[in-house]
Amino acid sequence: MSKTIKKLAVMGSTGSIGQQVLDIVRDFPDKFRIIGLAGGKNIGLLGDQINEFHPKLVYSPHTLNLPRNTKCSSIEEIAAHPEVDIVVVATSGKIGLTPTLAAISSGKTIALANKEVLVMAGEIVMREAKLRQVQILPIDSEHSAIYQCLHGEKGDVFRLILTASGGPFYRKSPASLNKVTVDEALEHPTWKMGKKVTIDSATLMNKGLEAIEASWLFSVPLNNIGIVIHPQSIIHSLVEFIDGTLKAQLSVPDMHFAIQYALSYPERLANNSLPRIDFTRLNSLTFEPINYAMFPCLQLALDAGKKGGTYPAVLCAADEIATQLFLEQRISFPQIAEIIDKTISLHQSIDNPTLQEIFTADKWARDTALDLVKVNL
Amino acid sequence: MSKTIKKLAVMGSTGSIGQQVLDIVRDFPDKFRIIGLAGGKNIGLLGDQINEFHPKLVYSPHTLNLPRNTKCSSIEEIAAHPEVDIVVVATSGKIGLTPTLAAISSGKTIALANKEVLVMAGEIVMREAKLRQVQILPIDSEHSAIYQCLHGEKGDVFRLILTASGGPFYRKSPASLNKVTVDEALEHPTWKMGKKVTIDSATLMNKGLEAIEASWLFSVPLNNIGIVIHPQSIIHSLVEFIDGTLKAQLSVPDMHFAIQYALSYPERLANNSLPRIDFTRLNSLTFEPINYAMFPCLQLALDAGKKGGTYPAVLCAADEIATQLFLEQRISFPQIAEIIDKTISLHQSIDNPTLQEIFTADKWARDTALDLVKVNL
Repeated sequence: MSKTIKKLAVMGSTGSIGQQVLDIVRDFPDKFRIIGLAGGKNIGLLGDQINEFHPKLVYSPHTLNLPRNTKCSSIEEIAAHPEVDIVVVATSGKIGLTPTLAAISSGKTIALANKEVLVMAGEIVMREAKLRQVQILPIDSEHSAIYQCLHGEKGDVFRLILTASGGPFYRKSPASLNKVTVDEALEHPTWKMGKKVTIDSATLMNKGLEAIEASWLFSVPLNNIGIVIHPQSIIHSLVEFIDGTLKAQLSVPDMHFAIQYALSYPERLANNSLPRIDFTRLNSLTFEPINYAMFPCLQLALDAGKKGGTYPAVLCAADEIATQLFLEQRISFPQIAEIIDKTISLHQSIDNPTLQEIFTADKWARDTALDLVKVNL
Repeated sequence: MSKTIKKLAVMGSTGSIGQQVLDIVRDFPDKFRIIGLAGGKNIGLLGDQINEFHPKLVYSPHTLNLPRNTKCSSIEEIAAHPEVDIVVVATSGKIGLTPTLAAISSGKTIALANKEVLVMAGEIVMREAKLRQVQILPIDSEHSAIYQCLHGEKGDVFRLILTASGGPFYRKSPASLNKVTVDEALEHPTWKMGKKVTIDSATLMNKGLEAIEASWLFSVPLNNIGIVIHPQSIIHSLVEFIDGTLKAQLSVPDMHFAIQYALSYPERLANNSLPRIDFTRLNSLTFEPINYAMFPCLQLALDAGKKGGTYPAVLCAADEIATQLFLEQRISFPQIAEIIDKTISLHQSIDNPTLQEIFTADKWARDTALDLVKVNL
C-alpha cells in the first residue's frame, strides 16, 4: 500500500460531484490532501470547504475573504500548480475544457467527471493526454465500470455496453411527456446528481454523451457501444470481449465508488462509510432494450457523435441552453430535444476542429438555440 | 498476438471436459497442438482422437493399436514431456492428483478442470506450484470467472461470491428428494457436464468443492467465500473488493468459454462457434440465498474444508463412492449426504498430511463408505 499522500485540485468543488470528492478526502486524511479548490456560485459552501481543507490556492468568480495561507488564483494556475498530482474536473459543461487541457499540459493525472470535455474536444484532449502520457481516470459510474473491467486486459474488446436506469420517465407514455414538470424531471429513481445531469438523465441525453465519451476514452467506435436499460442501476456497465465473455462492475448506485476508485487507482481502499451490496439480496437485475423513439435526445447525441467535427460541441451547447430553459419552465420537456435537433440541423460543421473552432461552434449553438426559443415562444 | 503454438497434453480427453478441450483445439489449429492424450474407458473415442490430433504420446488403461508416430506412455511421462507447455487436467476424482503434481514438477502450466486435486491436496499442490512458479489456470466456469475478475487487480479482495444454478431440485420440497430418480438428477437445468459432476450439482456438493478449490486457488479463507443461487447461470461468479465494488464475469453457460480462456490466457480469441449473449435480451438475472438445510452435502463440504487436514480427502472419496452408488440405483438421493456425513464422523484426521497420508485417508474413506452401505442396505 502506497504511503505517499496524493495532492488534489478540485475544479467545481461546490457541485454535487465536487462535494462527494471532498467526502472521500475527508474519509482518508492520510491518503489525500487538497491543494486547490475552484468553486462557483455557492460562496458560503466554498468558504466552509476552505476552512476545512486549507487549500493553498482557491478560485472563485466572487471576492472572498481568504485565510492567511490561502491565495486567490486562476483555474489554470491551480491546474498547473507543481504540488498537484491529480486534477479533479468536476464542473459540468464547457468550462471544464480549459482547466483540463491546462492540467494535461502540466502532466497531471486527470480525474474526469465532466462529460462535455471529451464530447466537445475528445480528439484534442486524448491526443494531448497521449503526448504527455497523462492518465485520464473517469469519474462517472459507467466509465469507471468499463475502466475497471478493462484493467489488466490486453484490449480484445468486442463491444462496450452502457447501462441506463431509464430515468424517471421510462415507464410513461410518450404523450404524457408534454406535461412533465421540472420537479418530476428532477426526481431521479436511482442516482442523486446535480440538476443539469439529472435532466440529461431524464431525456437520456446523458447516455448519448456517455457513449461519445466512452468512445474517446476507450478508443472504441460508437457503432460498437451498446446501451441497455437496467432500472436497478447496480451493474454500472459491461465490456464484451472478442471471446464472447462479458465483464461487469457492480455496486450500490452511489457516485462515491467511482470517485474513490479514480482517486485511489490503482489501489482500492476499504471504506466503511459506503453502502455495500448484500449479494444474497440482489434479487433481480433486469435489462430491456432502449426505446429510442421516446427519447430523441439519445439518437441526436449518437448521430452527432458519429458525424463528429463540431457537431458534438453544438449538441452540448444546445443541450445546456435547452435544459436551462426547461429548468426555468420556459419550454416543455419534449422541446428540449426539438431545440437541440433544430440547432444541429442549422449547423455547418468543421472537420478536425481546433479548440478555437470548437468554442466558436459552442457560442454559435448557444445563440442559435436561444434565438430558436425566442422565435417559437 | 502471439504466433507461437501452445502444445498441450490432455488428461481425460474422452470425458466431457476433455472433448470440449479438443473442440477448442479444433477451432484454432494455428494456436494449439496436441502432444499427449490420456483416455479412460471410451477406447473408440480415444482412437478417433488419436487419428484426428496425431499425438506423440498416448495413455490408455487398455491395449490400443497406435499409428506409427504415436507411442504408448504413462500419464506421468505425458505430463512431463519436454514439448508440452500446458497440461490440461480434465479427469475427475483423485486420479488427477498424480499427473498434476508431475506436471508441476516439470514446470508446466496447469489448466485444471479437476476439483478434487485442490480439495484433497490444495496445500501441497499450491506450495509446489509456487516453488516451481507454475501457473494454475482454472477450467471451471466459477473459478475462471473469479480469475478473470481478479486479472490485473492488486489483491484487495473482500469476498468471493460463487454462483450456483441450484441444480434440478432447487424448487422441490425436501420430502420429495427421497423419490428422485437417477434420470431426474442427471437433468441439469443449465449446464451439460459429466455424470459425476451433474450429480454433485444436484446435491450442491459441487459448490462446496468449488468453494474449497477457490479458497486454495485465490488464497481466500472459506469464511470469505459466499454462495448465491443464480438460476440462469449467466453470471459465473463475482469478486467483491475491499472498496465495496464487485466485478462479475458473464457468458452463455457453456464450458467452452472457460476452457478457451485457460488455453489462450492471457490472450482472448474470437470464436464464432461459441454462442454470444444478446445483452438487450438478458431480461432478468435473479439471485436467492442458499437453503442449506435442503442440501446437506454443501454444509458437509464447507465444514470439511474449514477443518482441513485429511477431512477434504475423505469428503471427496465418500462423495465419489456415494454418487456412484446412487448412479447404480443402490441408494436414494438423500442417502448420498448420509453416507458422506457418517464417513466423515468416523474419520480421524491428520493435520498437514503428506500425499501418502491423503491417499491412505482416501482409501480408508472409500472402504468405510462402502461398509456403511453394506451394513445399512
